[in-house]
Amino acid sequence: MPRVSQDQLDARRKEILTGARTCFARHGYEGATVRRLEEEIGLSRGAIFHHFRDKDSLFLAVAEDDAATMVATVAQHGLVQVMRDLLERAATDGGTGQGADVAGWLGSQLEVSRRLRTDPEFAKRWAARSEAVAAATRDRLQRQREAGVLRADVPIGILAQFLELAYDGLVLHLATGRPVQDLEAVLNLVEAAVRRS
Amino acid sequence: MPRVSQDQLDARRKEILTGARTCFARHGYEGATVRRLEEEIGLSRGAIFHHFRDKDSLFLAVAEDDAATMVATVAQHGLVQVMRDLLERAATDGGTGQGADVAGWLGSQLEVSRRLRTDPEFAKRWAARSEAVAAATRDRLQRQREAGVLRADVPIGILAQFLELAYDGLVLHLATGRPVQDLEAVLNLVEAAVRRS
Repeated sequence: MPRVSQDQLDARRKEILTGARTCFARHGYEGATVRRLEEEIGLSRGAIFHHFRDKDSLFLAVAEDDAATMVATVAQHGLVQVMRDLLERAATDGGTGQGADVAGWLGSQLEVSRRLRTDPEFAKRWAARSEAVAAATRDRLQRQREAGVLRADVPIGILAQFLELAYDGLVLHLATGRPVQDLEAVLNLVEAAVRRS
Repeated sequence: MPRVSQDQLDARRKEILTGARTCFARHGYEGATVRRLEEEIGLSRGAIFHHFRDKDSLFLAVAEDDAATMVATVAQHGLVQVMRDLLERAATDGGTGQGADVAGWLGSQLEVSRRLRTDPEFAKRWAARSEAVAAATRDRLQRQREAGVLRADVPIGILAQFLELAYDGLVLHLATGRPVQDLEAVLNLVEAAVRRS
């Protein structure tokens, strides 16, 4: 048996996550059957579940992959920029279907929302992912406060939760396929609400 | 066959909607089988589907019932008050399970989000319900602008969408069972963002 390098393993893992994200986006969480996952990813179930224990783990790995990217963007540019990026990707649907995929992936995240209340183990993993984003948001706001660009009359924790509320609202808006036209102006208002006027 | 008055029909309809809302909240949209609907409502499927064509129609009727209540509250007190009411009901979980029911009902609304993109007929009925709330929000903001309490530098349409984004964010937050503790302060910030400073 040939030795497989870490790079090869990482590349394979990434390939699986990309195909899985598309599959969940197209068919929803429930509709993404193992057979459809095989077709979209282009690998057998054996190969897929060599890397991920089950469909749940695969779904959470895609979500964790997104969360890691999101934490990096939040740390550098803030949560409002994450929202602007999301909006731009959702608006880009010129034949590629990429915009629909973004909305679809968000939609499949919403599908699991009921499980968060009924499955403690799943909820715990989901919470860890949300907390990493929340912590990055607070850190970034703290630095902005020290730089004097943030409003001074509201605690950092409240400002962070305000931005998270707007982010959640954007996710629900895009996932339900509603028009994106005025959302850029809305995000400007969100940003202005946390800044020194 | 005894004649049934309009009042009796209305009362029966209301009884069905109340039981259905609880059933969807407890079991989610998919999990609310006809058998479970019968048990929760306390009527046979024949009686239930004499009033509503199918499960879809029943679900949309509950959502439309909520939307009508919401439009009335928005017209009188604004969308921020709707959010405060939602928050208060979600926080009330002292043994009655009412708070969990509110979060659960919101959760089952999220479950249908994927269908909004794949089922045009369903999406059309859902859009009419959202548009009634949006129109009430814009009307209320227009009256507030005339009264001079609203910020003057942002168009009404953008302010309305900003409030809707916050409302959607609150729905997603509560439906995923996250803590409500600081949300009152967050809603104060939302309200302040649309007012004259």
